[in-house]
Amino acid sequence: MKLYFSPLACSMATRISLYDAGVEATYVEVNPKTKRTHDGSDFREINPLGLVPVLELDDGAVLSENAAILQYVAERWPESNLAPNDLLGKTRLRQWLCFIGTELHKGLFLPLLPASNAPEGAKEFSLQKAESRLSFLERELTGKEFLLDRFSVADAYLVTVLGWSVVTPIALEKWPALKAYVERLRKRPSVAKALAEEFDLYQKEIRQNAEPAARTA
Amino acid sequence: MKLYFSPLACSMATRISLYDAGVEATYVEVNPKTKRTHDGSDFREINPLGLVPVLELDDGAVLSENAAILQYVAERWPESNLAPNDLLGKTRLRQWLCFIGTELHKGLFLPLLPASNAPEGAKEFSLQKAESRLSFLERELTGKEFLLDRFSVADAYLVTVLGWSVVTPIALEKWPALKAYVERLRKRPSVAKALAEEFDLYQKEIRQNAEPAARTA
Repeated sequence: MKLYFSPLACSMATRISLYDAGVEATYVEVNPKTKRTHDGSDFREINPLGLVPVLELDDGAVLSENAAILQYVAERWPESNLAPNDLLGKTRLRQWLCFIGTELHKGLFLPLLPASNAPEGAKEFSLQKAESRLSFLERELTGKEFLLDRFSVADAYLVTVLGWSVVTPIALEKWPALKAYVERLRKRPSVAKALAEEFDLYQKEIRQNAEPAARTA
Repeated sequence: MKLYFSPLACSMATRISLYDAGVEATYVEVNPKTKRTHDGSDFREINPLGLVPVLELDDGAVLSENAAILQYVAERWPESNLAPNDLLGKTRLRQWLCFIGTELHKGLFLPLLPASNAPEGAKEFSLQKAESRLSFLERELTGKEFLLDRFSVADAYLVTVLGWSVVTPIALEKWPALKAYVERLRKRPSVAKALAEEFDLYQKEIRQNAEPAARTA
């Protein structure tokens, strides 16, 4: 099984989940600028949209879309307890995956990330939603350790997305339960390991993309 | 069971799915501008984010987020065949729900809808993604009747979202398989019934919001 990822991108949620479940995988880095893997292959031949994560199964099946891959990992290895088993619990998990994916990742953070090169109007439109979305999440997380009763793939996704705030105008200090949540989750061994590894790769990626050859690739 | 909806909003996907499954529900209209239901209640007391759909179960449980609610309907009434049962099939369904929710609904269409009042930069940023997202979908739907092997809740969501193109700069004529898909799906009785009913309500909503009392509400 191969996970196609870019350092610190939303694909880190799958890495965290696989570490948490103790599942082995090969990690294939995709340069988000050139869309090439380390051996020079074109990632768009795997996913035409060029988006990570992609999980390639041993039988060659290619899975895309973060929320789908996270639920696949949780359901394929149920002993990992990364997702509830009952219908209402599964629905609560999906509510969080959907909220994080649509309201936070795409709706709020994406246009604010430096790499998106979004026009000012797009950033302004995103920031209009910061207060309502993050204050809602603040209320939900106050007094709670995780989004659900225990650690789940939704936490793996949320800690990844909230980590992006440092390169955006969003100061998590304004939402103390969110800040405490990120600090607490980052102490979890699976999160700490994934973050340390991907932070190193991220710095290498930045240096690599700054080289003239990469810029014109 | 109550479905909180706004006419022609993404909540229409749940109405279509319930009609398709032959499941009875009470439909409670939410004015997207005032966030009030017809009896004047504040919808934000049900969902603090003010977003439809919300499905309120008979035991009072409140479900939010479109992809979560659609999967709930499919799994609660499995005899409706609105979702696959095996893990790979479920994953394919979730890929589509996630793609439609993040790439099309939030990433492409939302800022282009007149009601969003998005700045020009946000519209421009969205439109940059139209070609890659819709051409990908065009290739996927060419020669296929539905997104999966048979009608699913993902089709209910997609036909709803693509229907918004008429009030945006996106001309579906450029993607003939998408245009044919929408026309074909709209002939399905559940889709035709939902669309006819919500189109009437949408026109009433527009007239209502144009009245001075609603504008200042």
